[in-house]
Amino acid sequence: MTDRIRVGIVGYGNLGRGVETSIGLNPDLELVGVFSRRDPLSVTTASPDTKVYAIADLGDFTGSVDVLILCGGSKSDLPEQTPELAANFTVVDSFDTHAKVPEHFAAVDAAAVAGGNVAVISTGWDPGLFSLNRLFGEAILPQGNTYTFWGRGLSQGHSDALRRIPGVAGAVQYTLPSEDAIGRVRAGENPELTTREQHDRECFVVLEDGADADLIRETIVTMPDYFEPYDTTVHFISAEELARDHAGMPHGGFVFRSGESSPGVTQTIEYRLALDSNPEFTSSVLVAYARAAARLAAGGAKGAHTPFDIAPGLLSPKSPEQLRAELL
Amino acid sequence: MTDRIRVGIVGYGNLGRGVETSIGLNPDLELVGVFSRRDPLSVTTASPDTKVYAIADLGDFTGSVDVLILCGGSKSDLPEQTPELAANFTVVDSFDTHAKVPEHFAAVDAAAVAGGNVAVISTGWDPGLFSLNRLFGEAILPQGNTYTFWGRGLSQGHSDALRRIPGVAGAVQYTLPSEDAIGRVRAGENPELTTREQHDRECFVVLEDGADADLIRETIVTMPDYFEPYDTTVHFISAEELARDHAGMPHGGFVFRSGESSPGVTQTIEYRLALDSNPEFTSSVLVAYARAAARLAAGGAKGAHTPFDIAPGLLSPKSPEQLRAELL
Repeated sequence: MTDRIRVGIVGYGNLGRGVETSIGLNPDLELVGVFSRRDPLSVTTASPDTKVYAIADLGDFTGSVDVLILCGGSKSDLPEQTPELAANFTVVDSFDTHAKVPEHFAAVDAAAVAGGNVAVISTGWDPGLFSLNRLFGEAILPQGNTYTFWGRGLSQGHSDALRRIPGVAGAVQYTLPSEDAIGRVRAGENPELTTREQHDRECFVVLEDGADADLIRETIVTMPDYFEPYDTTVHFISAEELARDHAGMPHGGFVFRSGESSPGVTQTIEYRLALDSNPEFTSSVLVAYARAAARLAAGGAKGAHTPFDIAPGLLSPKSPEQLRAELL
Repeated sequence: MTDRIRVGIVGYGNLGRGVETSIGLNPDLELVGVFSRRDPLSVTTASPDTKVYAIADLGDFTGSVDVLILCGGSKSDLPEQTPELAANFTVVDSFDTHAKVPEHFAAVDAAAVAGGNVAVISTGWDPGLFSLNRLFGEAILPQGNTYTFWGRGLSQGHSDALRRIPGVAGAVQYTLPSEDAIGRVRAGENPELTTREQHDRECFVVLEDGADADLIRETIVTMPDYFEPYDTTVHFISAEELARDHAGMPHGGFVFRSGESSPGVTQTIEYRLALDSNPEFTSSVLVAYARAAARLAAGGAKGAHTPFDIAPGLLSPKSPEQLRAELL
């Protein structure tokens, strides 16, 4: 495949913008344009060269786009868009509602098979790279435990909960993996841990004028479900500090598999992501899987796939010969 | 595939013994037996139930073995055995001479294609899992650097160099990843590092009676190529301590990919193995790839494969539906 793979972006929020940037780092990919539900004239892209079209005009592009990267949300966009577009295009999404993956897969598979197209769902890092590491860990060390830790990362739901407290002018909340729990797992202790024991919570709060800091701290750390079960730290900061230091969307986490290959012989696999930008990293993964999807489609494959179904070599622009010589 | 996959082990050293143990942890696999160049009666297996046959009798098993796991060495065994056996069997090996992978692949592929069989080469952890992480890192973060660190792990070649020094009664050498270098990579500095800067060396030495410890320490730390270029620590211990504390074969290491998804936005992927037993872990990986090889063969695939060519889902005993529901 010496021709460039022609890619369309559907939806232009943080994820779509990240995909636009990522395509610019991959010389074997060519960005056809962004397809938006908004008025194209109202969409300002990262690069002034990026073309913007109305999503309603996608039908004109069936012959000039090799793969669409779907950048909508998992709650309401992707459950409709992925099956709908898989009927006519090779598509990739980052659907991340774990509990609804089987349902989404079935709907997308039916549409993709009927249309004779390839669809890759649930790429990204969790689901995605973390899922792959859970699978490898379990397959290689069948006698053992898998641990997934998230963070340090911004949690939108918990940040919202802080902002609803009277007297709070602004706030963000980071989920942190518990250092103590990680230490025990890394040491091969194979502890029994709940998600709560694995995570701590750190809050950065801007007070309204005259608000009672002690009362607000107490309201936070005793809030049921959200903060009470966790080791929660509260920092009060200024509005300037909030804007300056907490505008990014860092995230990441760990997947551990710790098991015994024979009695008393412990083997530990650790996979860690430390991400300055959660959406940009997810975008980077989407783009690599878009390459794989286009290649699968060119090879005659059909139907829905997940990262579990895709040979890793398809993600790389390098040929199999190059990969074996340079990276094996 | 509800029937168990029938596996044969070719060669019975540390790796073959590890494979034998690992098969016992995988209920979907059945061990047909060990095939050895030695007199079968002279081979004592980990389990008394394991059958041992002469490798010369392998021809009788073409219909009763689904996959052979080749546990010989990369220097002289596998370059001959893998192509030879791929002519008549589905085979998996852990060929680990990086520079000779293309040559080995070509020889094995020719034999496997001619015989209509599947061969999977260079499984294990490096090559193998580390290679996969180098590939994923590069494909997802095209603008960045990849770092491979090995250790803490026993190095046979460096241990031998110590034992050749007059006055040394016994010794082992561990290669250690440099904590300083790892810290710089983890912090996203993207430093330029040579393999030497990435590793330290730790020696445990038993002196002969009357040997001069200071002289031997000096001989070690100034030894060209082996120790002089590295930060080398020498510990003198007793023969009892050597036998008690240094009989294992621990190993492991790290693969890092650190890159920018846009200017100033650093993303870091870290993969770490901490292994109590290098051969047992390699064996565990071989066994998971044996499952994949048998499934590829059952699906009609032919020719040589590496871990780059194998969809991760094939490694797991779980069905695609189960994997999507439980691990994605």
